[in-house]
Amino acid sequence: MNGLVLVLFGQGNSRVEMSSSSPPVKLIGFFGSPYAHRAEAALCLKGVPYELLLEDLLRTKSDLLLQHNPVHKKVPVLLHGDRTVCESLVVAEYVDEAFDGPPLLPADPYDRAMARFWADFIENKLTKPFFMAHWVEGEAREGFEKEGLELLAILEEQLKGKRFFGGDRPGYLDIAASMLGPWRSVVEEVTGVTVVKEDEHPGLCQWARDYSSHEALKPCIPDRERLLAYFTKNKEMYKAGVKAMLQQ
Amino acid sequence: MNGLVLVLFGQGNSRVEMSSSSPPVKLIGFFGSPYAHRAEAALCLKGVPYELLLEDLLRTKSDLLLQHNPVHKKVPVLLHGDRTVCESLVVAEYVDEAFDGPPLLPADPYDRAMARFWADFIENKLTKPFFMAHWVEGEAREGFEKEGLELLAILEEQLKGKRFFGGDRPGYLDIAASMLGPWRSVVEEVTGVTVVKEDEHPGLCQWARDYSSHEALKPCIPDRERLLAYFTKNKEMYKAGVKAMLQQ
Repeated sequence: MNGLVLVLFGQGNSRVEMSSSSPPVKLIGFFGSPYAHRAEAALCLKGVPYELLLEDLLRTKSDLLLQHNPVHKKVPVLLHGDRTVCESLVVAEYVDEAFDGPPLLPADPYDRAMARFWADFIENKLTKPFFMAHWVEGEAREGFEKEGLELLAILEEQLKGKRFFGGDRPGYLDIAASMLGPWRSVVEEVTGVTVVKEDEHPGLCQWARDYSSHEALKPCIPDRERLLAYFTKNKEMYKAGVKAMLQQ
Repeated sequence: MNGLVLVLFGQGNSRVEMSSSSPPVKLIGFFGSPYAHRAEAALCLKGVPYELLLEDLLRTKSDLLLQHNPVHKKVPVLLHGDRTVCESLVVAEYVDEAFDGPPLLPADPYDRAMARFWADFIENKLTKPFFMAHWVEGEAREGFEKEGLELLAILEEQLKGKRFFGGDRPGYLDIAASMLGPWRSVVEEVTGVTVVKEDEHPGLCQWARDYSSHEALKPCIPDRERLLAYFTKNKEMYKAGVKAMLQQ
């Protein structure tokens, strides 16, 4: 399988045993991808054992990835027996519905709608300015930071009185927000830019610590030093990427 | 209520009566918006009676809209008693989960994941090039048309052997795709551009006819002549809008 250089057997979370009738679960991911992390976090929180197939996307894309996600050609891809599920938030909902284990989404239809609304807010409104505020250089950066800060203040409000977005334990919305967890401080260190600040966003800062140290998520929280090395090594690639995005 | 110029009592779909304990359902919409249509279509397919509050967005946004959707300030907004749900696809899932009536999403977790995957494909991949291919003028148009055609070919495949994306009757994914239904031929007529073609996309063309004439959707399919008048009148506004988008 061209481009698929490393196969790890995920440690999973053995609290819930797969029933003998359930086909094996494999996840095509990539070290450093917060999107792949979302799918892995769903499996960990749900207690589903899985095998992690790590892509080397910087070199090439594996035949396995291209075969199973011809539309987007991106990680994560969940393989559950002969079923293939792509797109990180779609994978998270699939994992929630297809397996036993602690629920990732609340039970009440309104609470479920709120989780989906805020996940969409993070995905389609916050992610771009947040990412650009860290990686863009020059005059354009300030505008992205301003927009990012306005949106972060709205998100901060959603944590009021709660440890996790999902309540007492991490769930679907925490998974959706995970780029603000283990990734944030690493990107801040590499870029020298800090947008989320302890005094302005105490809830989000505490949430990031609680998310990154949560017992059920331990198997899938990326090692900080390794993540730092990855972003340090690929700093110029990210900078060139945002420059190209600005010119589009 | 400033900006809210017209209040209609929706005909709903009386096949399923609301239980006496269910609070009233109101939908803030806008004539001509395919996003507002999605929410209304969910209510119609589910058989939920509703009151339609029509915004006059071209003039101003009502206090009711700004109060209930301060984040996006957009239609549709569903008011269900004291609950407020925004974002068209989030509303569609909420309606599916909060009310009795025919299911909008399939029962099987994998089929549900597929419906969500393709709805996301329409929302975040197809909509922009499809919209731009119709409204952009000049050299840039061709690139959008090429991209749109590639994506439409993928979507056409999903209809193979089926009358609706959801199977025998319209469901969540059909609602997500509705801009390809009643809106498409009107936009083609106003812009003079045809991207979806009978010989290349027979499935999508037949689907558009079946969607637009489906009995359960009749109360919410916009009148073609009125839709044509709306887009004809606001043609220059749409053209200016895409020009601004291209310069961003």
